[in-house]
Amino acid sequence: MKRTKIVDALKSVDFNHDILVKGWVRSHRNSKAVDFIALNDGSTINNIQIVVDPTSMDAEALKSITTGACIGVTGTLVQSQGAGQSVEIQSKAIEIYGLCPSDYPMQKKGQSFEYMRKYAHLRLRTNTFGAVFRIRHNMAIAIHQYFHEHGYYYFHTPLITASDAEGAGEMFQVTTLDLSRTGKTGEVPYEKDFFGKKTSLTVSGQLEGELGATALGGIYTFGPTFRAENSNTPRHLAEFWMIEPEVAFLDKDELMDLEEDFIKFCVRWALEHCKDDLEFLNKMIDKNLLETLQSVIKEDFVRLTYTEGIEILQAAVKNGKKFEFPVTEWGMDLSSEHERYLVEEHFKRPVIMTDYPSEIKAFYMKRNADGKTMQGTDVLFPRIGEIIGGSVREESYEKLVAEIKARGMAPESYSWYLDTRKYGSCPHAGFGLGFERLILFVTGMQNIRDVIPFPRTPKSAEF
Amino acid sequence: MKRTKIVDALKSVDFNHDILVKGWVRSHRNSKAVDFIALNDGSTINNIQIVVDPTSMDAEALKSITTGACIGVTGTLVQSQGAGQSVEIQSKAIEIYGLCPSDYPMQKKGQSFEYMRKYAHLRLRTNTFGAVFRIRHNMAIAIHQYFHEHGYYYFHTPLITASDAEGAGEMFQVTTLDLSRTGKTGEVPYEKDFFGKKTSLTVSGQLEGELGATALGGIYTFGPTFRAENSNTPRHLAEFWMIEPEVAFLDKDELMDLEEDFIKFCVRWALEHCKDDLEFLNKMIDKNLLETLQSVIKEDFVRLTYTEGIEILQAAVKNGKKFEFPVTEWGMDLSSEHERYLVEEHFKRPVIMTDYPSEIKAFYMKRNADGKTMQGTDVLFPRIGEIIGGSVREESYEKLVAEIKARGMAPESYSWYLDTRKYGSCPHAGFGLGFERLILFVTGMQNIRDVIPFPRTPKSAEF
Repeated sequence: MKRTKIVDALKSVDFNHDILVKGWVRSHRNSKAVDFIALNDGSTINNIQIVVDPTSMDAEALKSITTGACIGVTGTLVQSQGAGQSVEIQSKAIEIYGLCPSDYPMQKKGQSFEYMRKYAHLRLRTNTFGAVFRIRHNMAIAIHQYFHEHGYYYFHTPLITASDAEGAGEMFQVTTLDLSRTGKTGEVPYEKDFFGKKTSLTVSGQLEGELGATALGGIYTFGPTFRAENSNTPRHLAEFWMIEPEVAFLDKDELMDLEEDFIKFCVRWALEHCKDDLEFLNKMIDKNLLETLQSVIKEDFVRLTYTEGIEILQAAVKNGKKFEFPVTEWGMDLSSEHERYLVEEHFKRPVIMTDYPSEIKAFYMKRNADGKTMQGTDVLFPRIGEIIGGSVREESYEKLVAEIKARGMAPESYSWYLDTRKYGSCPHAGFGLGFERLILFVTGMQNIRDVIPFPRTPKSAEF
Repeated sequence: MKRTKIVDALKSVDFNHDILVKGWVRSHRNSKAVDFIALNDGSTINNIQIVVDPTSMDAEALKSITTGACIGVTGTLVQSQGAGQSVEIQSKAIEIYGLCPSDYPMQKKGQSFEYMRKYAHLRLRTNTFGAVFRIRHNMAIAIHQYFHEHGYYYFHTPLITASDAEGAGEMFQVTTLDLSRTGKTGEVPYEKDFFGKKTSLTVSGQLEGELGATALGGIYTFGPTFRAENSNTPRHLAEFWMIEPEVAFLDKDELMDLEEDFIKFCVRWALEHCKDDLEFLNKMIDKNLLETLQSVIKEDFVRLTYTEGIEILQAAVKNGKKFEFPVTEWGMDLSSEHERYLVEEHFKRPVIMTDYPSEIKAFYMKRNADGKTMQGTDVLFPRIGEIIGGSVREESYEKLVAEIKARGMAPESYSWYLDTRKYGSCPHAGFGLGFERLILFVTGMQNIRDVIPFPRTPKSAEF
């Protein structure tokens, strides 16, 4: 008999036929007359109830089917008598694939997330992490769907790079040199290294993404990105996934339209495709989750210049609002609490903040005519703060070279990047979305280590 | 006016209205009465013809619009008088975004692929590479589409790893140590490294993928993978993309069905979604391309044991077939020419080869009862040889530990992997597909460096 997935069995109304389901036991309880096994196969957050007549099988074998065990059940699908489920299976035969010893670390319910992080390979079998990673999958699919439908090409930028994309960000070095033999003379023999020079893991695919956009029209990256920052916080990972669309012929208004349309599409996708998982997380993790998700797709995002934002924050301080990081003067970088104040308290909806001071932003962003601001378009979200960082890119060769020099960087290191401005330069724009920030937002989870299967953080690279 | 993409303009029948197109000049030729500009914006391999009345604009400006320049054209869409195109644009106004100096490296047509590799950032603007990377995008979309539709979850396995997935394969080391200061004492101070131990770039996400499959049911990875092998060949990259589905409750026959169904889906997708690009490549790169693609989706793949394969090869040698690598005896590893002989000459269709000698395959593959073969299922393709490597995974804790020990590996390094066999073990299977091999097959390109935007190879990490 062919296996039926539990997600399909639960939706079936084809009663009184035999089906075969396979999965892992979430619980097993028994009364005198009957055993109940809750079975889950990862296809849905919901378990299917298996009803077993204890006289139908060997008592020891039945007893051995404990939480975590893996079994296959052939039986009749019937309408359920019990509350909370519509169908159940009257077991006819159970095949045991793998028992589960009593030292199974996911045995108990209600373990802390911190405890479960130590068993990242087994936490995948719990309700919460099943929900989180099904949603993570769906968000990735939504992203590909959106860009594909809108004519953007998925573009694979390199992970190993000899350049430092933003002139900032601590990088991991990549090498095949024998570390016990380098540096004896105080110099590193990079000519003997695999690539013949110093290479690192990329901190952003944007610059290479622009090479794609200025040829193929519109591209997006979706791949791993790395930061070797020694930040042990619930918001930092050393390895995370980024989405970076770069689009030719896009101006600032069109860029904001794209950002808003894109992220609303993703949230709408979650609400439509992850209903059961979101309802579970709304109940167990964040009672406002569904409401927050619905709120961001309902209303237009506020479009606000940095200058206006600073004025609102200064007024708030004047009226007694206390921030951990002081609101000083025009030119300061905003922190997450400032962004969240604007979004959560002042406007009560997402904000696209534009026209930041050039000094606090990267060299490739297009400057406005005022000489002090640039055409940035960051999206600020409730709970998260900055979820998207975007800008129009500077298309003038001369201005870009001047900016690179002014920042003490070397134009010759960016010759290939500058070529896009030298040969047939075009106006273009793009943005970056940290994938895990989106997942934090959509799942209501608090710690970024709980929304990626195997987090990489300082002193931790398990599994 | 809103920009119209050239792919849409070429399909339009809404004549005699004004539209705005933007793109890069592929050619500009002039006669006395009229100028013709072929414009491309990356949305299609086809250019749109712009017809310019030279009296309508400044003569110097018109002359400056050379190959590679970026312009926007407002004009009337009309039915074309010329052969080879259905529509053209009668220009009313041209805006020049970026001129293109005469040292533009993609100026000339018919440059060699080797030459163009040096300008990987600009080769994206050529017909061939536009076609290749639009097809690459479409293959990625097909892969996500296939797995999503079939209920598999996209699962992000880590890139930075402290383990060596297959116990083989040269790895790149990842470190934040100062290489000019390590090794002075002959020892490497890994306790001071970012992760507190030696870490490398993954050679495969499979083992972590199995952790996902044995919880979520069916998963697939799709991400970058690394090999630090000093192989300067048209078939090797140091950084490439892999797709690795791992599926609970799948047996050998179901695995073969999945492999065949999946890869036929991808090839069919290319034929349906990349018609213009494939026709171009069929004309310019490989005259048999379309025929080869159509042939693999038409017929059932041959399912053949390794033992049967060896017998066919031995018979061929007896009948005078010459191979570069000798066909010796049962137990030998097959080379690409042997695989291609079976596919291209003997069967004339794809082959799924099964039940290889255990000794030539990895430790995690499930052994048959004969004690000498394992349940492998590799797909062999014309032109490529092995395109998919798959197997049922060993689900017995005891057998797996024994195999790890027999190969001189340390079970304690695989404790998390072994936990999946300890706690509720389940039968499962999976396969790996090298993404670039698929792209080579679908595009007809010969060199793997020409199907990834920015190839990483020994001594080369440009862009």
